[in-house]
Parts: sequence; structure tokens; C-alpha cells
Amino acid sequence: MQQTKRLFDIDPWKIASTTLDKTQRRLQESLTSIGNGYMGMRGNFEETYSGDHHQGTYLAGVWYPDKTRVGWWKNGYPEYFGKVINAMNFISLELILNGQLVDLATTSYDDFYLELDMKNGILSRQYTVITPKTTVRFTFERFLSLDNPELGVVKFSAESLKGNGSLSVISKLDNNIHNEDSNYDEMFWEEQAINEVVDPFSYLTVRTIPNEFQIEQFTVTAAMTHISQPEVNPIKTTGPLVTSEIFEFDLLPNQPITLEKRIAIITSRDHPQSTQLAKATAILNNLKNNTYSDLRQAQDIAWAKRWELADVVIEGDEEAQQGIRFNLFQLFSTYYGEDERLNIGPKGFTGEKYGGATYWDTEAYAVPLYLALADSSVTKNLLKYRHNQLAQAQHNAKQQGLDGALYPMVTFTGVECHNEWEITFEEIHRNGAIAYAIYNYTNYTGDTSYLETDGLEVLIEIAKFWADRVHYSTTKGKYMIHGVTGPNEYENNINNNWYTNTIAAWVLRYTSESYYKYKEITPHVIPEATLKNWEDIITNMYYPTNDELGIFVQHDTFLDKELIAVNDLDPKHLPLNQKWSWDRILRSCFIKQADVLQGIYFFGNHYTLEEKQANFDFYEPMTVHESSLSPSIHAILAAELGFEEKAVEMYQRTARLDLDNYNNDTEDGLHITSMTGSWLAIVQGFAQMKTFDEHLSFAPFLPKKWEKYEFHINYRQRLLKICVDDTVTLTLLQGNPLDITLYGSQVTLTNVLTVPTQSV
Amino acid sequence: MQQTKRLFDIDPWKIASTTLDKTQRRLQESLTSIGNGYMGMRGNFEETYSGDHHQGTYLAGVWYPDKTRVGWWKNGYPEYFGKVINAMNFISLELILNGQLVDLATTSYDDFYLELDMKNGILSRQYTVITPKTTVRFTFERFLSLDNPELGVVKFSAESLKGNGSLSVISKLDNNIHNEDSNYDEMFWEEQAINEVVDPFSYLTVRTIPNEFQIEQFTVTAAMTHISQPEVNPIKTTGPLVTSEIFEFDLLPNQPITLEKRIAIITSRDHPQSTQLAKATAILNNLKNNTYSDLRQAQDIAWAKRWELADVVIEGDEEAQQGIRFNLFQLFSTYYGEDERLNIGPKGFTGEKYGGATYWDTEAYAVPLYLALADSSVTKNLLKYRHNQLAQAQHNAKQQGLDGALYPMVTFTGVECHNEWEITFEEIHRNGAIAYAIYNYTNYTGDTSYLETDGLEVLIEIAKFWADRVHYSTTKGKYMIHGVTGPNEYENNINNNWYTNTIAAWVLRYTSESYYKYKEITPHVIPEATLKNWEDIITNMYYPTNDELGIFVQHDTFLDKELIAVNDLDPKHLPLNQKWSWDRILRSCFIKQADVLQGIYFFGNHYTLEEKQANFDFYEPMTVHESSLSPSIHAILAAELGFEEKAVEMYQRTARLDLDNYNNDTEDGLHITSMTGSWLAIVQGFAQMKTFDEHLSFAPFLPKKWEKYEFHINYRQRLLKICVDDTVTLTLLQGNPLDITLYGSQVTLTNVLTVPTQSV
Repeated sequence: MQQTKRLFDIDPWKIASTTLDKTQRRLQESLTSIGNGYMGMRGNFEETYSGDHHQGTYLAGVWYPDKTRVGWWKNGYPEYFGKVINAMNFISLELILNGQLVDLATTSYDDFYLELDMKNGILSRQYTVITPKTTVRFTFERFLSLDNPELGVVKFSAESLKGNGSLSVISKLDNNIHNEDSNYDEMFWEEQAINEVVDPFSYLTVRTIPNEFQIEQFTVTAAMTHISQPEVNPIKTTGPLVTSEIFEFDLLPNQPITLEKRIAIITSRDHPQSTQLAKATAILNNLKNNTYSDLRQAQDIAWAKRWELADVVIEGDEEAQQGIRFNLFQLFSTYYGEDERLNIGPKGFTGEKYGGATYWDTEAYAVPLYLALADSSVTKNLLKYRHNQLAQAQHNAKQQGLDGALYPMVTFTGVECHNEWEITFEEIHRNGAIAYAIYNYTNYTGDTSYLETDGLEVLIEIAKFWADRVHYSTTKGKYMIHGVTGPNEYENNINNNWYTNTIAAWVLRYTSESYYKYKEITPHVIPEATLKNWEDIITNMYYPTNDELGIFVQHDTFLDKELIAVNDLDPKHLPLNQKWSWDRILRSCFIKQADVLQGIYFFGNHYTLEEKQANFDFYEPMTVHESSLSPSIHAILAAELGFEEKAVEMYQRTARLDLDNYNNDTEDGLHITSMTGSWLAIVQGFAQMKTFDEHLSFAPFLPKKWEKYEFHINYRQRLLKICVDDTVTLTLLQGNPLDITLYGSQVTLTNVLTVPTQSV
Repeated sequence: MQQTKRLFDIDPWKIASTTLDKTQRRLQESLTSIGNGYMGMRGNFEETYSGDHHQGTYLAGVWYPDKTRVGWWKNGYPEYFGKVINAMNFISLELILNGQLVDLATTSYDDFYLELDMKNGILSRQYTVITPKTTVRFTFERFLSLDNPELGVVKFSAESLKGNGSLSVISKLDNNIHNEDSNYDEMFWEEQAINEVVDPFSYLTVRTIPNEFQIEQFTVTAAMTHISQPEVNPIKTTGPLVTSEIFEFDLLPNQPITLEKRIAIITSRDHPQSTQLAKATAILNNLKNNTYSDLRQAQDIAWAKRWELADVVIEGDEEAQQGIRFNLFQLFSTYYGEDERLNIGPKGFTGEKYGGATYWDTEAYAVPLYLALADSSVTKNLLKYRHNQLAQAQHNAKQQGLDGALYPMVTFTGVECHNEWEITFEEIHRNGAIAYAIYNYTNYTGDTSYLETDGLEVLIEIAKFWADRVHYSTTKGKYMIHGVTGPNEYENNINNNWYTNTIAAWVLRYTSESYYKYKEITPHVIPEATLKNWEDIITNMYYPTNDELGIFVQHDTFLDKELIAVNDLDPKHLPLNQKWSWDRILRSCFIKQADVLQGIYFFGNHYTLEEKQANFDFYEPMTVHESSLSPSIHAILAAELGFEEKAVEMYQRTARLDLDNYNNDTEDGLHITSMTGSWLAIVQGFAQMKTFDEHLSFAPFLPKKWEKYEFHINYRQRLLKICVDDTVTLTLLQGNPLDITLYGSQVTLTNVLTVPTQSV
């Protein structure tokens, strides 16, 4: 296990520190990112910071098709990789105190304090600069509005604690921005228009530079306005890709000055370039009569509403408490389901590395959380997103010479962007997760309207893909799937991955069953011959198993490997992905993340407890959990099997993955899609909430160290509160009585139900 | 089968054409490449050519460590890729006729003729330019000297056929040269010195630009001198990375002018920069009294000597005749064994794509030819080359966490440069071929001196690698090799590739046996425990086989595939590597090149004819021969099994692979290391020459279409001529009588032996 690298204090609601660790500024920036679903940014300073850091601002759905870079081209590789594009820095406030640039990398400072308040998404900061002439306290506060998603607000103030001084504040919209992860070190932005006849605003319009792959060219307009106290008339200047307003203040002791900066950002996703400026200035004008404190209050209320439903309260373990809140906060800052054109990017608005906005993580790990913690329309939007991209998924399948639809590994538009054959072409189990989410939504909500129509269309195309992708082995008399990468990416190009074969056959079955069920009302038709072929594949699918061990075998030759437990490995070899060459990892038995166990998790109602235990006992000891998606699934299964210690250990790894920088890469951005893991571990793990067969059940235990935990869920027009301490208290807060199962007994929840908490 | 794209006329000794196909200029350049082992170049024009083409000049052993480019970094990847560096263009003669640049891409011309004479390596060219004022015939001739490898000579002449005119000839040494295959589009050369006080020569010294990986920095000096008729005093000028001499001629009808350009090129491989210029000018001074015709005569004689031993005469099939000569010509232009620091690059001096100078092709495909057609010291030099790089091969093994030595896939220095995990880390069978070449040399020549000393050291290190790379499967009670790519690169990351397991066990056995044999005289020691471990591995190695089919199985799950013959595939799918996405190729049964059959070829004395036939019948129909290394091995085995038609078909593919551009990529350069294939197909195939167990045997047949074929071989201090028409005539030209086997009967060859030719 790695040592934790904790930058921030333990606090139930705050991410706060009195230290500026210049060697870890990138990590600090990642952890203090804010977002409002429409846009977001890393915890960059408003003023100049010349030390190592990563300036990053991101606008949801605004991306760039960066020319693919590979060592060796393989047939079928996509031509471009859609990158999250690093956008305009609109928070910039350059400070010049007594003629000297304020830059915490070089300027002496004191009393530094940085705080992200997760209750309302306010990022604030203070410090004191002492110069021979003047001692000045600077304060910053900013947020991205939930109520007006196109609005960002920065409030700056400076107060002389001693001596007089002069302060210039240069407020900028600055698009001299470069993607750190650009394949060929190219600029992605060019200037379109700047500051023409729109006093009192300054504005900047930029567009993405056209290249050979430009499917979608974006223009972005930002306008800014300022409220200063005392009132100052700024000087306006422009430069390439930047517009500035310069404010000159005199600083006198105990006479604070303040400058409030309001920015509206409009993109061509919503408005053509011709109306962008009008739209931006209208937003700012509409708020003319709102004070900063009005805006902040609205922000407090909006976040409070989210927390009311989503908060998980943990007593007795502040680290765990902070961890789950941080995860929920960052997840909702990234995505709260307002826009069906969007999805949940793996780094959200916190970094640009790897690019792409949509991974199968959404369907596999995020959907269960959004089903429980947001309106069902949010999940439905995530499903619609895939339906909207069906044509592109068909294109992907065709690229591989296959029928039907293959949803991509990484994408913005639905067209595959990933370019590594063993992932791009072979990690096709992702297609199963897309189908599983349709089942999950329908089964959880009871709303069959999506399944009957668009959902079935998606399912049919995915089923067609699988039916074409299998081959019949005359030697074995079975259908097989060769050449895949399973969820365990530490094996590539394997044959008959049990998980992939299982989910492929399941898709065929679920599609057939759904078709027969809604045949009369659905507009989609499946020919008889196709259904027969699917039936044949379902019946004759090959599943590697070993009766002696009572396990499902990960793939054809897994048991021929040298089988070693992680605990028997000299710790100097860990993490494998840093210590071993790739081939060694591949031929070892070590598992990156749940693979067979992922299938057992998805289809928990198909397997006996004995089967679950045998597989868990066999695979978990060989699992290194070097994917951030691994611990949650193991926590859930461990809890079900009564391995409390393992479940809690796994929870800890998922809850504070970023806060404690477990994977040593949080400086590149947060692991947004993995953040559902801690919630899954508590709700589906510790509380053992299950929803199979349209029926809700719980079997909670309380981790030894904890005194209590409590959460809410939405379920079929009900709102439930679950509180676990020495008793389990279920409260039906809204909706009709509901039959549920608690510790294996069927009960009807009408109001409040309390039973003693059982141990695992 | 693809249509052939034949640019040149059929001729037994010439590569000639009266057509300049501007759309295929690159292909034409590749096919008219010349070289002398020390340096070489593509068939570029001396004068300006602004159409699409590829200017390419290469100096043996002068390379550049280009920073690795990959899409996704994997642990263990090398940091740089050694690139064949495109060097100074020293043949350049810019022509300005009546003030107009002569450029065949735009200038009108007539009577074009281009010819490469394979008898002597002279590349010549003529054409007529008609301007309103003057009609001029231009003639070019050039060669790279075999006698003075650092010398290149260009003879240019111009003759007015009508009208007067003025002609400027600007003769350059021009190093404004860029590698087309540079990973990051960077320049590799910078200027060091130019034209200071060395009249009457012009010179240019350049060096490779230092970068972070610069293990070996090269400087190169070229000096040039001219002989003009009529005598003209040139004007000298220099520019960045270029030095020029400008000659002004008046053209009068029927009064030809000539300009002979002599260039000496010296590299820091042989001489430090401080002495390079002196060395270059000394070479030119030494030849002051030699006329062009003296130099040409020496060239004719030197090539004639090579052909005397190596020529393969074919009567009755001019295409075949031209093919084999072209291959031998280009092979010897690339490598004739003078320098033990060099190896046989896959594109020789004909292109720079892919880079790297040393592949396992040398040991697997080139060694048998050089053993027969050159002094045994040539092959010994190739073996020494690997011994010299043993430390680097140990480094490669260590990079993968393994013991012993792993020879690289692609290299200049011995350090692995290839960066694709499934090749770099997994195509480890190459290590077996390095060992096999030691056996081949020793068995062929009877010279055990290398094996006893350096050879055994190499063998021990390779054996140690294999012993560490296998793992013991407790499930099967066998040693296995998981995660490899076999010779068939259309499968990756497979388990228990029969060929790899076979050659690995063979290396352990051959090393042990050799050790016991030379234990008393070799300086190397193998501990008892190691030998015991090797014995255990040899005894318990796992070999996938199928008794029902009587075959060795390519790898563990090969028989689970959908097994289809290439003939049953719609031809629109071929070639697979252009038509199918990579994953589809991988999971198909189609084989790129001999895999199991490669092992049967190498160890032909270990298998019965029935075994050979069963495997050939099973695998060949699934083989697409999309590697240029494939057809020769199949021709040899087909011949042995009596499949004349197949053997001849395979010969044709290998003999004219480049001349007919079978693989559609000869524009990038010739397939130098595959060029041994046509010779192997005739000698080891049609003539069935075998040398197993230190005994020479033949069993020739004559292809139906052919009237006769004839070749020489060196064998253990003898020189033999083999002539096959309706009789087989073996002539011992030099050396003591020799016991050989002919058509299965043992005979003693003392002088001439003639027997009737048997059909297959």
C-alpha cells in the first residue's frame, strides 16, 4: 500500500489548508476544482502564479479533434482523438502592488488560507503580502452559479494592514491557452472578435482552429463586467487572444477596496456566434440589480437542495465523512443531468489528460447513483445520449467489419476516439454495460417507456453486434468470443473472457425477452431468423468454468498461469503498472479490477452465495486494484459475503482515492467517474441495498469504527431515508407504502421501521 | 492476388525503362537504388526534380536516436528509436539551360532512358530537352565504388543536337535533408564546417544534432572535385548546410561538354572529425591520375568477381532470371561482410522507413545465403556482431525483469528500439534465431572456433533468458511460455506458440550439449544447478499438438478458431492488412508467414515426411503470405513435399516481390532482407540442398517452364557448381573430394557427376 499524500485538513464539509505546497500545486489545484455542469475549472489562482501549475478551464461539450498519434498504425484506428479542450481563463486578476507583480511563487506572503466549501461550492482564499512600505491582506472568493450556469463570479478585496500603497488590478479574459495533452503541441484556439462597441462590457470571442477532422467547430464568447468599491474607471486594452481592464486603487490602512468580476460565457453549442455577445451581455444586465450577496445566497440554496437528497452522513469517522462528501460534491459539479447532450467525463472539469468525455464508466458505475440521488430524468438523459449516438456506434462496428452497433471506449460524438488496438477494438464488453444500463433504469424506476422505444432500438443493434462478433468453434461445438480485453485490462487479446461471454449472451437474452414483451407496441422489428440465431447463441455459448474450484474461469488459459496471491508478492513490485514491464503484467495472474466479479456483481441474482464466495476467494487475492473502479465492486461483494474488514478496506480506498492521492496521479485531475464508488460501497455494500427483479432490499451492517451512517434514496416515486447505527431505521419520507425485504424478511414500509442492526 | 505494377522491362541483366512515370517516381527510385556496403542511395536524379519523390542517401552505421512516439506509453518501452538517417545529397547537379531550370517534373523532354546495369552497378540515364533555341541531349552515369568504398562518381554530359545555348551546372554537397520518418518532424543534422582553405576541393562537414539520447554522435565530411571538358573554372558558393560549385558552359551543336564529379565521404565511424577532411582529399588526390574509364573498369571487375561466385543462371524464364539477379545485386549492394560492425538493414540503402538496421531476418534468412555465396568470414562477422552487442541484449532482458540476454527486434547498438508491446516484449522467438545462426554456421562450415568461445557465451545468455521466461503450470504439470507473438504476426499475445516453445527448448538443449562438448576448452562455466534446471525444462516443455490431425498446433487455442482456407475467402478481403481491422485479423485463422512451418524448416531433420506433409497441408491453405519472408519457406517445404506448382508459385512471389511491387509498398524502399528468399527457394527448394548433420545433400527438380538453372556454392573449402536441366550436373571446381547425398544415394564428388533429373 502506498503512503497517503494528504494536502488538506480533515473536515466534514471543507477542503481547507493553511499551506501552499509549491511542489504540489497541481495536486492542490485538482482538489479545489469547482464546476456547475456547464463549465468548471481547476483551483487556479486568479492572480499570476509562475510556479509549476496547470491552468485549466473547461466548457462542457466543447472539444477538439486532435490528430491521432500512434507509434505504429493499425488498420481501423480512428483518425482523431477528441480532446477536452482547455478554454479561456476568465477568472484572471493580475495584481501589481507598489509596482511589483504579486506572484506567490516568488512574492513573500504570510497567513495563507485556502478553502473549498462543499456545502455551496465557494472557493476562497486569503493571504498577506508584506512589502517594506505596505502590508496588505488579499481575499478572493469565487463560484460558478448553479442558477445561471453561464455565470461565473469572482470577488476580490484588498486591505492595507499597515502603510499606504498603490494597487493595480488587471482583470482579463485570456485565451492564450494550450492543451497540455495536445498530440502535436498545436494551438486549438484562434481569436474571432474582441471589444467592439459594447461598453460597459469587455468581451472576447474565440473559435477552435479548423483542422482536417473538424466535425464540429466551436465559437465561445465571454463578456465581463466589474463592480468596484471605491468606484474606479478602468482602462481597457486588448492583445492577441486577450482583453483586459485595468483598475488602479490607492490602499490606505483599514480602508478595504473590493472588486467584483462577473463573467458570462456562451458557446455555439447553445447560441450561434452572431447572438453570443447579446446573450452574454443580457445575462450580465439581468443581474445588474443583484448584489454579490444575492448571488451567493442563491448559490447556497441551490447546493443545499442537492445535499438535502444526496448527503451521506457518517458519524465516528471524519475521514470517511469528508471522502464521501468530496466525491458527491465533485460528481454533481461535473454532471447533474440538465443537458442530455452531455455525459460524465472521467476527469470532469478538473483536467484534460486522456481527453474524451464519455466512457462506459457512466453506465457501469454512475447510473446506479444517479438513479437513487437524482430525478429519474437524469438517468434517462444519460440513456438518450447513447440513443442519439446510435448511428456513430453503428459506424464503429462497421469499422471493424461487424454488424450492429459498438459503443465507443472514449468519445464526444459517439465515434470511437481511442487508439490502442487491445482497448479500442477488443475491450468490447463496454457494449454490454450500455445495454445493462437500460435494464438497470427500467428495473429500478419501473418506467418502461424508454425500453419500449429507443431503448429497444439500442438493444437490438448491440445484440446484432454480439451475434456477429461470436464465432462457432466446430472443435468445441460452442459459440466463442476470441480476442477481447475484459474489465481486467492487465490481460489483452484473450479468448472467452467469462465476463464478456456472459454479458454478450445476457444482452441477446434481454433483447429477445424485451422484444417479445413489447412486440405489439414497439416500432422495431426483429426477423424470426435473427431471433432464432440469437437463441442458438444463448443456448450454446461457451463459458470457461472449473468445477473442482467451483469458479468461473476468467478466460480460456487463465488457470495455466502461475497463480500467486498479491500478499505473497514482495511489495517492492507494487504498483505493478509502475514496476513491471507490460508483458510481465499481462502474463501474470494479477488482476487490475473486478472481472469475473464484475459479472457476479451485475447479475447478483443469478448466482448462489456459494458461487459468489468461491469466486471471490479465488480472484480477490490476485487483485491489485490498480484501477480506481476496482475497490467499490469488491467492497460490495465483500460486504455481501460478510468480509467486513475487506469491505471497509475497499471503501477507504475508493472514498479518499483523490483526497489521499492513492494512485499518485490526481495532479492530472480528479477520478470523477470513480467517485460513485464510495457511495456504492456504502449503499450497495454496507447497507446491502439491492434492486433486482423490481424489488428493493437491504441488509445493513455498521462498520466497527463508525457510530452511524445515514442516506436518502429515490425509489419509484418514494423518498426513503436509511439510518444505520445500532438499529436500522427506514423512513418513508415521500410516496406510497412499499414492500421491501430487510435482512431477508419481507416487510411493508409505510412510515418508519426500526430493527436491530445485524452484524455481517 | 494483386495485379503486378511492373515499371521496368524484362531483361536478364538490366533494370531499364524508356518511361518516366511521374506518379510512380518513388517506386522507380527504390528499384534503381545503388550501394557499395559503405553507402548507398535511392535512384534519385542528379538534377532538380520537383515532382513527388524521395531524396535518400544513407551511410552504413550512421543513425539517429529519434525520440519514441507512441499513443499510450507502456512500462518498459524504449526511449528512442534508432533511425536510419537520411544523409547528404552529394550527387546533386542543378542544371540551368538558357536561364531555365531543368526539372523533369515541369520541363518538356523526349527520348528518356533509365538503366541500372546489375553487372556492374552503373546507373545511367539520358533524355533530350527541346527549347525554342536549343535541343540538348543530357547523359548521366554514376556508381559507388566497390574498390574505394568512400568514393562516389557521377559523369554528366550535355550535347546540343540543334542550336546554341548556355548551360550552368551547379554541383552541390547538400545536407538540407530531412528524414521522412522522423517522429517529431525534427532536423537531424547541423553544419560543422564548410569550404575553408582546401582548394581545389569543396567540402562540407556536418554532424548529427545532439539530443537527450545521443549515445553516438556522428560527424560526416564530404569533399568533391570535378573534371570538366572543356575546362571551366567554377565559382564556389556556400549556404546553410550546402556548398556549391557553378560551372558555366556554352553549348554548340555536336560539341559535347562533360563534367565528372568525384566525391569522397568520410564518417566518424572510421575517422575523427579532425582527420576527416584530410582523409577525403587524400582519396581524391590518390585518384588524380585515374581517368573515369579507369575507375569504371575497376568497378566492372569488382562486380564481375562477385557474380562469378554468386550468379544464378536461369534459362527459359527471363522474369525469374531478372528477379533472382536483382535480389542478389541489391543484397550485395547492401552487405558484403567487410565490416563486422554492420548488419543487413531491412531496407538497406533504399529507404528510411521504420528505421533500425538489424532484425532477426539476418540470422533466419540471410545467413544461409552468405554461408554459400561468400567467404565464411562474412557470416562469422554477422555472428560477432551479436556477440559485440551481448551487454545490450542483457540490458534488454533486464528491462523486462528477466535473466540472460534478449536480442532486440530492431536496433543499431543492440539496445531494443522497437516500441509496440506485442512485438517488442513478446516476439521473443527472435532470440532463438540468433542461437540457430550459431548452429547453422558451425554445422555448415565445420569451424567450431566461434561456438567454443564467444558463441557459447551468447548461447548461455540466451538460454538463461528462456529458462527465466518459461513458467511452470501446476495445472498442466508442464513448462509453458505465455504471452508471445510467433513468427505469424497476425496473432499477438498468444500462449504456447509451438514454434517459440520448440526453439526455446532447442536452445537449452543445444547450449547444454555444446557446453558438455567444449567444457574443457571453453572459458565459460555453467553451474550444475542451472544445467539441471534446463534439463527439467527440456524434458517437461509443453507442446500443443493434435494427434487426430497429426499436427503441431500453432498455439493453445488455435483450433478453436473458425478455420477457413484463404481460397474460400472472397478476394475482396485481400490483402487482409489493408482490408481488415487489426482485431479481425488477430482472431482469424489466417497466417501472415510460416510459423509452425518455420520450425519444421529450421529443424527439418527432426520430423518425418508425414509430419511435414500433415502440417503443410493444414497450415499453408490458411497462409496469406503477407510478409515478404513467407513465400521462400513455403517454396522450400513445398518442393520437399513434391508440390511443384506451389513451390514455383511461391518462388515467383519472392523473386519479383519488389520488381512487381507485390506488397504495394516498394516505394518506401526495397525488402532487402527478404531478397534471400528467391535464392533459398531455388537452392534449398528446387535443388533441395540440405546441410543437416554436417552433410550436404541435393535432390533437384526442374520447374516445368524452365530449361535450366545453375548456381555455385561454397561448402567447407570447396567450390561446387550445380547445374540442373534434364540432368543434374555437379562439378567440384575447387577443394577435396566430398561425400554427398544425391536423390537419397550417397556419392563421392571428385570432379563432375551427372545423373538424370528426377521429377518431384
